[in-house]
Amino acid sequence: MKFSSKIEKCGLSPMRKFHPYALAAEKKGRKIYHLNIGQPDIETPPIFFEAVKNFHAPVLEYAPSPGIPELIEAIRGYYAKLDIPLESGDILAATGGSEALEMVLECILDDGDEILIPEPFYPNYNTFVRVTGAKIHPIHTSPEEGYHYADRAKIEAEINEHTRAIMVTNPGNPTGVVLTPEEMRLIVDIAKEHNLFVIGDEVYREFVYGGEKLATMLQFPDAAENVVVVDSVSKRFSACGARVGVLISRNKELMAHAMKYCQGRLCSATLDQVGAAALYTVGPDYFAAVRDEYKRRRDTCMAKLAEIPGVVCKCPKGAFYIMAALPVDDAEKFQMWLLEEFEDHGDTVMFAPGEGFYGTPGKGKNEVRIAYVLKQADLERAMDLLALGIKAYNAR
Amino acid sequence: MKFSSKIEKCGLSPMRKFHPYALAAEKKGRKIYHLNIGQPDIETPPIFFEAVKNFHAPVLEYAPSPGIPELIEAIRGYYAKLDIPLESGDILAATGGSEALEMVLECILDDGDEILIPEPFYPNYNTFVRVTGAKIHPIHTSPEEGYHYADRAKIEAEINEHTRAIMVTNPGNPTGVVLTPEEMRLIVDIAKEHNLFVIGDEVYREFVYGGEKLATMLQFPDAAENVVVVDSVSKRFSACGARVGVLISRNKELMAHAMKYCQGRLCSATLDQVGAAALYTVGPDYFAAVRDEYKRRRDTCMAKLAEIPGVVCKCPKGAFYIMAALPVDDAEKFQMWLLEEFEDHGDTVMFAPGEGFYGTPGKGKNEVRIAYVLKQADLERAMDLLALGIKAYNAR
Repeated sequence: MKFSSKIEKCGLSPMRKFHPYALAAEKKGRKIYHLNIGQPDIETPPIFFEAVKNFHAPVLEYAPSPGIPELIEAIRGYYAKLDIPLESGDILAATGGSEALEMVLECILDDGDEILIPEPFYPNYNTFVRVTGAKIHPIHTSPEEGYHYADRAKIEAEINEHTRAIMVTNPGNPTGVVLTPEEMRLIVDIAKEHNLFVIGDEVYREFVYGGEKLATMLQFPDAAENVVVVDSVSKRFSACGARVGVLISRNKELMAHAMKYCQGRLCSATLDQVGAAALYTVGPDYFAAVRDEYKRRRDTCMAKLAEIPGVVCKCPKGAFYIMAALPVDDAEKFQMWLLEEFEDHGDTVMFAPGEGFYGTPGKGKNEVRIAYVLKQADLERAMDLLALGIKAYNAR
Repeated sequence: MKFSSKIEKCGLSPMRKFHPYALAAEKKGRKIYHLNIGQPDIETPPIFFEAVKNFHAPVLEYAPSPGIPELIEAIRGYYAKLDIPLESGDILAATGGSEALEMVLECILDDGDEILIPEPFYPNYNTFVRVTGAKIHPIHTSPEEGYHYADRAKIEAEINEHTRAIMVTNPGNPTGVVLTPEEMRLIVDIAKEHNLFVIGDEVYREFVYGGEKLATMLQFPDAAENVVVVDSVSKRFSACGARVGVLISRNKELMAHAMKYCQGRLCSATLDQVGAAALYTVGPDYFAAVRDEYKRRRDTCMAKLAEIPGVVCKCPKGAFYIMAALPVDDAEKFQMWLLEEFEDHGDTVMFAPGEGFYGTPGKGKNEVRIAYVLKQADLERAMDLLALGIKAYNAR
């Protein structure tokens, strides 16, 4: 049977590649410390579950295609506190940030089009871009420069007649890079000058550790036609399993196209939208506590990394990831070795090898993404295992 | 800004077209009887909500990309009772039948490809086919023949070098057509001979009113490579808002491609999968009662339609829709008139005009889809309003 040429170009998640080897290691009795996945361990605010339990309609009906009014209002309220006034028509509820992203890409990308994304980038972007028939054109960065990409010459060098959009994850996954307001302005200016969309994947907005003001690409009213924001409750409220995301834009034509997609898939899950609307009543204390916790973890990881000779890593400013170049020949080989040969008192460690985060073949070979989503003691142990592993691997 | 040529070809849902006019009519004090939407009024089995309430993990985590094991097992058990043995790898949980459909179409359709679908068909098929760059090639039917399409000559006449699949909704939305086992065999044979996929959208499986054995395209083991089934809890358990569907196929290559899509969007909502797994413990009494209720409603509608001179309509055997040709010049004009000018004791009625269900331009102009999702007394009143409306409309 013949399959779509587009799906043929897609791949499985590089983060899940080592899953069978992890299972085999566990079968041998190994305890694995997981720094490889972005599933936060922070408790979901109980108000989500309370709202779901208080849903008492006898029939679990379809929600409205653009989202339930309570959720749309909650999102408007959240952005109003960031000084971003939104109309309800600027907002479409989606099944996770993933669907919001899929929606906007389906609306703007055609076969042969290109979208600029700084690499390393979140690997699932590949799937959503490839099914449209377009491709990701990477903006190059390096671990030595802390994965910095907000540079006019660097970005403009990659723009060509096929370019339709610039997409940035801010704060960055996997790099933790946080754009300054001036850098955001620069990217928006470039997009306006070249008639491009700017897609801001801002699901990690709250996770900034230098006291930065919460930022969004929506803060430039003169770029209303260009800016699209993908947002989600997944990381913000540690509610990944709710699959509640949102697409935001003041570009009316874009939103009218996206509405066709929304109606096509009928709606997002009703109960999860009810729970998500309640999450937005969580106060600033929640975010402050979560931010403190992650900052402490980041600092722990960075201190441990600083003790490993040969590691290249600038301190990331946001999200809950660290991208680092390790003193190993090949991070995938090293990961496999950690699962199959290494152990220290029965323990080993997993991270996400870097190659899968790059669009340029061969890049990121000695890099890894570390997700600091473990409690303090586990995190310290995991980082010690990484150090021990590197030493033993290179001494083979 | 430039948009995708594919999204430009998509449209809004024809079912939602009259929504603003309905609001205006309600503002004038009209009571509208809704025969226009497929939202069942049957109570969702309370076990769904109980299972959701009994979910006690502190973190609402991502579910596995292919679905939670409890749901996959529940679906396997359901199909085992239909004498269809499935491996867990034959099943991928999806966010509604809609996402399951989107997944399979993304996997098999390329630009310029065609998929055969008997018309009239569920209009959202248009969106999911068009975003792949392919198009729907309709198989023609007529109200006079009860929308019969399972005919070798009729189907083979439409197959060309671009054809990749035959998709059938069985039982049919909007026609209520139910294929006989022989007709299913015929379609599968044609697909095998021409190397095509057969996509069975079987979300209305339980809704058959002639004592038919529950059927699925999966019942032909010799067509394992060709057959793909889209299924859902939405209609079966009146749980449309749960957005839990499923993609089923024994074609390993297809499922491997679909898994890429699944991983790309991470997962379906965790809590809804927990609730959906519980739904599958509902016993045959539930289905028998629901089936009796809908059969009574269908019979009520058919009896009322028989009394309206000039209506063309054969009795549908399944789903909860009746497609009928009315003695009016234009069903959309008639619907608009019903909302803007007609009333009987302050009441009026809505149905779904037929044109939006057709792929061939100009077809279905005097046809309508009636969704019998109202309680008996309301349904009788709604059908009387239709009869009164036709009379008054044609006497203007």
